[in-house]
Amino acid sequence: MNTFGRQLRMTTFGESHGKALGCVLDGVPAGLAIDEAFIQSELDRRRPGTSALTTARKEADRVEILSGVFEGYSTGTPIAMVIFNADQKSRDYTNIKDLFRPGHADYTYHQKYGIRDYRGGGRSSARETAARVAAGAIAQLMLRTMGITVRSGVTEIDGIEATMYDWEYARTSPLLALDPTQAPAQEAAILAAKAEHDSVGGAVLTEALGVPAGLGEPLYYKLDAVLADAMMGINAVKAVEIGDGAAAARLHGSANNDPLTSEGFETNHSGGILGGISNGDTIRIKSYFKPTPSIFQPQQTIDTDGHPATLELKGRHDPCVAIRGAVVTEAMMALVLGDMALLNLGRRMEHLTKIYG
Amino acid sequence: MNTFGRQLRMTTFGESHGKALGCVLDGVPAGLAIDEAFIQSELDRRRPGTSALTTARKEADRVEILSGVFEGYSTGTPIAMVIFNADQKSRDYTNIKDLFRPGHADYTYHQKYGIRDYRGGGRSSARETAARVAAGAIAQLMLRTMGITVRSGVTEIDGIEATMYDWEYARTSPLLALDPTQAPAQEAAILAAKAEHDSVGGAVLTEALGVPAGLGEPLYYKLDAVLADAMMGINAVKAVEIGDGAAAARLHGSANNDPLTSEGFETNHSGGILGGISNGDTIRIKSYFKPTPSIFQPQQTIDTDGHPATLELKGRHDPCVAIRGAVVTEAMMALVLGDMALLNLGRRMEHLTKIYG
Amino acid sequence: MNTFGRQLRMTTFGESHGKALGCVLDGVPAGLAIDEAFIQSELDRRRPGTSALTTARKEADRVEILSGVFEGYSTGTPIAMVIFNADQKSRDYTNIKDLFRPGHADYTYHQKYGIRDYRGGGRSSARETAARVAAGAIAQLMLRTMGITVRSGVTEIDGIEATMYDWEYARTSPLLALDPTQAPAQEAAILAAKAEHDSVGGAVLTEALGVPAGLGEPLYYKLDAVLADAMMGINAVKAVEIGDGAAAARLHGSANNDPLTSEGFETNHSGGILGGISNGDTIRIKSYFKPTPSIFQPQQTIDTDGHPATLELKGRHDPCVAIRGAVVTEAMMALVLGDMALLNLGRRMEHLTKIYG
Amino acid sequence: MNTFGRQLRMTTFGESHGKALGCVLDGVPAGLAIDEAFIQSELDRRRPGTSALTTARKEADRVEILSGVFEGYSTGTPIAMVIFNADQKSRDYTNIKDLFRPGHADYTYHQKYGIRDYRGGGRSSARETAARVAAGAIAQLMLRTMGITVRSGVTEIDGIEATMYDWEYARTSPLLALDPTQAPAQEAAILAAKAEHDSVGGAVLTEALGVPAGLGEPLYYKLDAVLADAMMGINAVKAVEIGDGAAAARLHGSANNDPLTSEGFETNHSGGILGGISNGDTIRIKSYFKPTPSIFQPQQTIDTDGHPATLELKGRHDPCVAIRGAVVTEAMMALVLGDMALLNLGRRMEHLTKIYG
Repeated sequence: MNTFGRQLRMTTFGESHGKALGCVLDGVPAGLAIDEAFIQSELDRRRPGTSALTTARKEADRVEILSGVFEGYSTGTPIAMVIFNADQKSRDYTNIKDLFRPGHADYTYHQKYGIRDYRGGGRSSARETAARVAAGAIAQLMLRTMGITVRSGVTEIDGIEATMYDWEYARTSPLLALDPTQAPAQEAAILAAKAEHDSVGGAVLTEALGVPAGLGEPLYYKLDAVLADAMMGINAVKAVEIGDGAAAARLHGSANNDPLTSEGFETNHSGGILGGISNGDTIRIKSYFKPTPSIFQPQQTIDTDGHPATLELKGRHDPCVAIRGAVVTEAMMALVLGDMALLNLGRRMEHLTKIYG
Repeated sequence: MNTFGRQLRMTTFGESHGKALGCVLDGVPAGLAIDEAFIQSELDRRRPGTSALTTARKEADRVEILSGVFEGYSTGTPIAMVIFNADQKSRDYTNIKDLFRPGHADYTYHQKYGIRDYRGGGRSSARETAARVAAGAIAQLMLRTMGITVRSGVTEIDGIEATMYDWEYARTSPLLALDPTQAPAQEAAILAAKAEHDSVGGAVLTEALGVPAGLGEPLYYKLDAVLADAMMGINAVKAVEIGDGAAAARLHGSANNDPLTSEGFETNHSGGILGGISNGDTIRIKSYFKPTPSIFQPQQTIDTDGHPATLELKGRHDPCVAIRGAVVTEAMMALVLGDMALLNLGRRMEHLTKIYG
Repeated sequence: MNTFGRQLRMTTFGESHGKALGCVLDGVPAGLAIDEAFIQSELDRRRPGTSALTTARKEADRVEILSGVFEGYSTGTPIAMVIFNADQKSRDYTNIKDLFRPGHADYTYHQKYGIRDYRGGGRSSARETAARVAAGAIAQLMLRTMGITVRSGVTEIDGIEATMYDWEYARTSPLLALDPTQAPAQEAAILAAKAEHDSVGGAVLTEALGVPAGLGEPLYYKLDAVLADAMMGINAVKAVEIGDGAAAARLHGSANNDPLTSEGFETNHSGGILGGISNGDTIRIKSYFKPTPSIFQPQQTIDTDGHPATLELKGRHDPCVAIRGAVVTEAMMALVLGDMALLNLGRRMEHLTKIYG
Repeated sequence: MNTFGRQLRMTTFGESHGKALGCVLDGVPAGLAIDEAFIQSELDRRRPGTSALTTARKEADRVEILSGVFEGYSTGTPIAMVIFNADQKSRDYTNIKDLFRPGHADYTYHQKYGIRDYRGGGRSSARETAARVAAGAIAQLMLRTMGITVRSGVTEIDGIEATMYDWEYARTSPLLALDPTQAPAQEAAILAAKAEHDSVGGAVLTEALGVPAGLGEPLYYKLDAVLADAMMGINAVKAVEIGDGAAAARLHGSANNDPLTSEGFETNHSGGILGGISNGDTIRIKSYFKPTPSIFQPQQTIDTDGHPATLELKGRHDPCVAIRGAVVTEAMMALVLGDMALLNLGRRMEHLTKIYG
């Protein structure tokens, strides 16, 4: 249950404050040039401790490839990657050993397993997403050979929405913000909430360009359904929209249908997916992140015996998880598309002829 | 790729205008009383042709159980169910044999497979959801023994939103509407669009009550992620929200966190799920359906050779697919919860002791 | 758990004396010409009641395709096939309702599920293999386009072994015997056991010709391992050998290694598989079938309450299940190879380039 | 494709001469006491370099647990284990970089992937089985709480068969031999072949005691079929037998059927499995290992360009892989039974009642 994907399969392991976390990526075709610097650079984009907008926890997040790569190329065998935990500071968390943090997975892990690694959220910590980013980087390398690229940006923070999308700006913005005109207000909102020991939510748009028509598997591994699964599975995401999303439900069919022309679709309300299969247009998915549950105000809760208690959290947390979450959405998008590209092989008899001759 | 679930596994088959459609439901525990009348009654709720608000296509949708049930009880072997297609009217669709319908899966199936059953949407037709409803009904029977019930209702049509939820009303409303005060306006909107040969969208709230804490499998089979997959995989759904959904992204953490008390959670912003695991509160998920793509106005499109063409659809289609879609969301919710209930067995060593010990 | 395969996936359903049995075959590439007459002819080869060597139970075994085929070609959607049970004679089995048959699955199903369909073995009946043969026939059609053929023959009955292999003879022999010189003795052994109300065992060699090198997925979906799974999963099979099998364990490495030459392997001790991957040579697997457990002598057993009892079976059973089992081994071989052929697509980056350009 | 199991899932990674090898074991129930010393002791049993009967390659094989264990207990999250490669001696293998070794996976990996890690067999090396042994040890810990134990012993080497089974002797014998009276001759056969730079094959009996009736999933995850898969997937295994195996095919039904009594089965020809489900008796499976393909005589082969060549191997290899292979069969048996025990939970409605109340 810690494996994602069918043909391109990522299995992750590790807890926030254990020895290490990592992943095994299985199904990467043989002969892919593995650019380790790119993988590390993607991890660096997700890495915390780089600005006042993210947690002060410092993690080097150095990824080490243990297997599956030989003389710079994938061999077709599983690629294991590991990140050893350095800056663990377990003492920050001992005060929450017997208390459940509202909005967190503490309570549900405890109910499910009867035991939990309470250090920093253990397995439920967003730190696990580092493994996804490493695996997603390899998926991106694979997709690039097909002419597919993924990108993401923050569209909204604390209700302040982007009015335009500048993808170049997003790439270098500390907020990963898409709108340079709204970014200052968005940043101010984060800092204001942080000053009140509170947190804010946000939204992220993730796109894939250059996706050929035909990816996605009806009827129970549809591209949109699997993307929804991938995004909703990221910590703190509470809503996902494909294309126009909820707004489509307020249009009439005559306005929402994307007309076909000899040059392609005239509009892209659909977000590049029809019937669960890519239509050749840009894939667009929007993910909404709730405000970070770790806030530094006193909160009403219970202890593991069920008695009322007040929680006073210490430690270091992102005041807005959507920012670093954006990098994770790219990774998940890449993993889904890589999986779909492999699954789609063999969907026509002529594919077999092309490969087996 | 036509199988949904891991321990409770539904495999569906069949096309809109083929001989039959159906499903094989595998993993139902032995000893469940199979109430065939209930299964049929669920299909009858989904069945079209019952009012001006849904398609005029008449389908008896009589389900026949072929296997897996002996003397009224499940035996633990796969339960195959089949619905033979009666009212096929293939002639309605011959005019679209070589044209792609905007907003439909025609184009993408053609791109993916190089061949498609053009009769009534073939496999991509919403008619396939009848199989889901049959399987979901059995899942509901199983969940009932655990005290879990599912329900759904329409919250919004053509932008007209419910202001209150009356679940009793929803059960008998032809619209499955949750708000009796808005239902007349919602109905009028549908009929107005229909008169203009157009269609409308809508939204559906689906709930599960009585779900014990602990269901959902971290990290890549989370309850919220799989529900998002399940709902987004229903024809026409373009957005899904867990609990407060996108609205949560506009709250501060201090307002969004659900405080814990000795009696349970004080609020339910989370929609009953934390860290991908049920927390014992009501599960809430909202699904947004786009307007039916099949409209009866001339539309710009291309033919299978890529040449521009005008499409003039005939036939019978729901002016608002959200209504019948609501029944399908219940089925999918039940299948997900049934699967999670089975997967959760064995998550603690004490479970093994209880069964084997 | 009633699904076999990963990319070419067969899900079967049905009991011996239920309404129907059948299968859903998912993952067949679009564009395969579906020769229904061939599928039926394979079923006819497995069909009982054709000679004194098999059970007298008469089953028409007419297969009906319900979905997935349009205008004679596969569409890429699931192919459902059903065989309705005609000659059920449930009364033959009522005397065993409360008794366990030695050598049968009665006892274990009862222990596992607490309930069983006692009519003719229910789900555990060899009758279920009809569904495998239908699915395997489609897999064979797919493999043929790649130049792969499968074949099988009986090498041994009641300890009387073939001294030569005549594959042409096997195709028409009522015993499916490979050795025309031993067939009379083998037949006599069956009839002698039958006259004593007893049964005999046998062995079947199954081969695949024309398999390209490279099929099979290390390390936990190896070609030999999955073939072993496939064959051992056929009713009554108790041993499987790849290539020289157990005899290889008695050779020295210098004798057992197959030397490579520029024209291929000089010998084929390995049975065409090295490291779990096909090496381009003929795939050879041998399956050993135990004697039919249904014999017509009084047998010591217990009833469902655990009390000692004597079982006196009536009904109709094959005195040697290896004969009809041979046809099933071909089906399973074809399904495995079809699955492996699809899985192997995408194992090299150059495959993606060939398909996506 | 590097994952084994469904509910108890082992994913392995790593090459013989890469940085590390290891596994992620997912699905271990929470609350299992993890005895690290036992895991290491199982690895030590498999470890080479301990006698003249196995390879001289020295590997410390120290296993390190990276995740999934907290304060000595499993938490229900994935348990990652890693073994770093120390004694790599890559130079031993450079002479085979461009040659295919007869009987090895070199050729087939090259054909499949177009690239291979030629150092010591890379991923196809038996060294990978260390990861299986580590995972299998945890499965054994889990099974012990259910009263299930596994054991193995060598029954045959170079055609010299055991005439009696002494399980205590096997546990301490350097050969893991079951028969103290044959062990000297078996050892002599190995040393004689080794002196001639050759190798020998052997057979291993693996048993599970205390298995409750009801484990195994019809029809495509049968206990015997999955055990066959598990054993045939171990390097060098070419045949597997359940219970009496091939010998059963030479008996009449009246002799092969195991009579049932109120105290259980009177005999155990079946090897403890009927219809793919455990019957409560001892599970018995026999695996036949071919002679080690790595021999030190000149062998005829081809190079990667297809030209004839002579291979002269250097390096260190077991003259008989069956010995260390026996430890691996126990690990695989334990993994299969652990998986089946988890899958079986929920096969009856009363299981749900017991867990969910």
